[in-house]
Amino acid sequence: MHHNEKEDTIVALATPPGIGAIGVIRLSGPQAISIANLVFKGKDLLAQASHTIHFGKVMDGKVVLDEVLVAVFVAPRSFTKENVVEISSHGSPYILQKIINLLISQGARLAKAGEFTKRAFMNGQFDLAQAEAVADLINADSEASHMAAMNQMRGGFSEKIKSLREELIHFASMIELELDFAEEDVEFADRDQLRALIISLQKEISLLIESFSLGNVIKNGVPTVIAGKPNAGKSTLLNTLLNEEKAIVSDIPGTTRDFIEDEIHINGISFRFIDTAGIREARDKIEALGIERTFAKMKAASVIIYLIDLLEETLEEILNEKEKLDALGIPYLFVGNKTDKVEAEQLEKLEIHFPDIILISAAKDQHIDHLKSRLTQLVHLDKFRTGDTIVTNIRHIESLTNTQKALDDTIEGIHRHVTGDFLAMDIRQSLHHLGEITGEITTEDLLGNIFSKFCIGK
Amino acid sequence: MHHNEKEDTIVALATPPGIGAIGVIRLSGPQAISIANLVFKGKDLLAQASHTIHFGKVMDGKVVLDEVLVAVFVAPRSFTKENVVEISSHGSPYILQKIINLLISQGARLAKAGEFTKRAFMNGQFDLAQAEAVADLINADSEASHMAAMNQMRGGFSEKIKSLREELIHFASMIELELDFAEEDVEFADRDQLRALIISLQKEISLLIESFSLGNVIKNGVPTVIAGKPNAGKSTLLNTLLNEEKAIVSDIPGTTRDFIEDEIHINGISFRFIDTAGIREARDKIEALGIERTFAKMKAASVIIYLIDLLEETLEEILNEKEKLDALGIPYLFVGNKTDKVEAEQLEKLEIHFPDIILISAAKDQHIDHLKSRLTQLVHLDKFRTGDTIVTNIRHIESLTNTQKALDDTIEGIHRHVTGDFLAMDIRQSLHHLGEITGEITTEDLLGNIFSKFCIGK
Repeated sequence: MHHNEKEDTIVALATPPGIGAIGVIRLSGPQAISIANLVFKGKDLLAQASHTIHFGKVMDGKVVLDEVLVAVFVAPRSFTKENVVEISSHGSPYILQKIINLLISQGARLAKAGEFTKRAFMNGQFDLAQAEAVADLINADSEASHMAAMNQMRGGFSEKIKSLREELIHFASMIELELDFAEEDVEFADRDQLRALIISLQKEISLLIESFSLGNVIKNGVPTVIAGKPNAGKSTLLNTLLNEEKAIVSDIPGTTRDFIEDEIHINGISFRFIDTAGIREARDKIEALGIERTFAKMKAASVIIYLIDLLEETLEEILNEKEKLDALGIPYLFVGNKTDKVEAEQLEKLEIHFPDIILISAAKDQHIDHLKSRLTQLVHLDKFRTGDTIVTNIRHIESLTNTQKALDDTIEGIHRHVTGDFLAMDIRQSLHHLGEITGEITTEDLLGNIFSKFCIGK
Repeated sequence: MHHNEKEDTIVALATPPGIGAIGVIRLSGPQAISIANLVFKGKDLLAQASHTIHFGKVMDGKVVLDEVLVAVFVAPRSFTKENVVEISSHGSPYILQKIINLLISQGARLAKAGEFTKRAFMNGQFDLAQAEAVADLINADSEASHMAAMNQMRGGFSEKIKSLREELIHFASMIELELDFAEEDVEFADRDQLRALIISLQKEISLLIESFSLGNVIKNGVPTVIAGKPNAGKSTLLNTLLNEEKAIVSDIPGTTRDFIEDEIHINGISFRFIDTAGIREARDKIEALGIERTFAKMKAASVIIYLIDLLEETLEEILNEKEKLDALGIPYLFVGNKTDKVEAEQLEKLEIHFPDIILISAAKDQHIDHLKSRLTQLVHLDKFRTGDTIVTNIRHIESLTNTQKALDDTIEGIHRHVTGDFLAMDIRQSLHHLGEITGEITTEDLLGNIFSKFCIGK
């Protein structure tokens, strides 16, 4: 399985497209060093030690394309475990394209999406779940998604799956031993012990499957709605949250990410605000949308921040809104806004009626920190800091769910005293699905599907 | 002058912003290696040889920020001639920003625009004209601009300026020697020889100043107008040229430049088509613009491609248009379009009347190559391949023009038999302006002005 399917040498731009101080072109394959050497004027790259850097010129015939630094990695001491060369040139898209074209003319082939990482996987650098984490890591844009991807890339999740699998393999081999002695009717694998093992495995797998609801929002953000009557201050709150975030992220040119108008990072987690366009729009024209339409919109959210206009709303109105919110069954924060404009007495009364209410002034930026910490508590998102394994990949969930089904069948089989060969089949099925996660079991289609989602150059 | 004004260690992202397989962070300064070592878990970077690469982790306390490759360059064997470290991490803007923040917290300072290149200049890695070429090289987007920048970066232009300067210095020192012996009334510097030298210098400087008209279009593109009567096929020709170019540039993901609708590369040179919006617009509605307005627009061009509608226009009309074009005094190509729709006889007649006419069919893509080669001949742009020094920088032209003025004064002085001290003053003035180009003469203001136009990280 883990042999290198292609013996050719691949090339691609490894750095983002665009203009920068430098750009890096990566070559990998048996001929990587010799192809680079053909266009390099400087030291003989073939004679250099691994992990060394050499200054010289890239020559297209007699024309100097650029002065570059070339890093040489000799197999197997590289990312792909093949010979690898990284050419660091001036960061002009024109020059980078010229150099890539030149390397292709000398025998390299343009890499397909994810092909470097695929080769690293095929050559045993890491398993499939770790390879997938490389892509997650590159796309990570919050503390939580970064930590989850890093943990997975460093093998935390794979270890977990492998230890589950090893326990099962032990029993599978015992049962298959029985099959060899079928006529003698012995039981090498104790059925009670097997049953206990499977139940404990199922518990662990259930925990992993459950972790996906957290893993999914870590990776994709928490769908959040800010709701409330017209003029309750929804747009003001959204702006306050966004401006606070902008102030926190230090402004390093060239690295600052673009702020997406409706995505806000709070305590390391991304919250995706739904229908912010609607909120902003409502500011400019008269907010004619009825409260019913607001409630319809809230059903798409994982979390609701519901704003009460403390200036305008009566206690009865507020009570009525809270009942409707409870009926929705979606976690929500009940937030009284405009504290700066009402009497302390009124606030005390509210807190007696609604012990959970959060009192803020969005306009004056008061108690926003309290709102934020309640928001992260509400969705139990601080869990990502515990170091527990969190599944973030939908493919892994599919495999885990299939594993769970096969384990159900095994338990059912034990219960019905089926013969060893049936039990063995069910256990093999579980092993198969667990093995899909780390890539011990794989197909060319599956690999193609996974790596084609990577960017070129990775 | 060439001492390092700042002893601190600077850091910046060196690769373009955005998501890629890898991103590179560059540190430079006395503490570059020791600061990197503080956050690096792996080998002791302080104990490593120059030009070596080391795998390890970047740690923010106990948190692994990323697994990285670190390249170590020990002073003076680096771009800046200082200690330099390049950290190659996964290409996630989130991670890159975290690592830069971490390095800043450990004592590095965020680099200003162009500060790495400025340090390289200050430490004598190259002169000022070469430093400026680094920025031009990164922005080069055509063969011609790439070659001009590369020639300048590799010192071609600087050599030229330095040799002019050395000849003058010789005479300046002779004249200053005279001043020491002023009472003895000797002439160490032969006035006729000095005059001959200055005239030959002036010729060379004139050639350099003249080269700027070429250098400017190489750098910024040739302003070009496609003109002609309504329906002559202007829009069709523009599309044909643009599509041909798209077909030539191989489609390498991540490196292909964005095609600017009105910029077309022909034989390595960029032509900027003026008022292409007007041309495209005209296609959709009735072209109501009079021929007079077309001529007004043409005055902004360096080159005109004038299209004749062979189907509609009479010989008299064509003659009339040609006369108007000649009167404009701007180089133009006289092009008959729609050859596919007229008789061979008619074409022959045209060629007799207008020997210079280019006959094409824009719609059928016929003889477009001929049009292109005539276009580049017209503006003598093939000169850039001769290897002659071409000035592309407006700052250099200012200095050369000032040098020329000071040399005029010197000649005038010799003619009027002024005393040696006046001559010496004029020659010093010439030397000053020539020295500004290569940075032998410089001020902090001038440097700040030059390097602030660079990108951060360069």
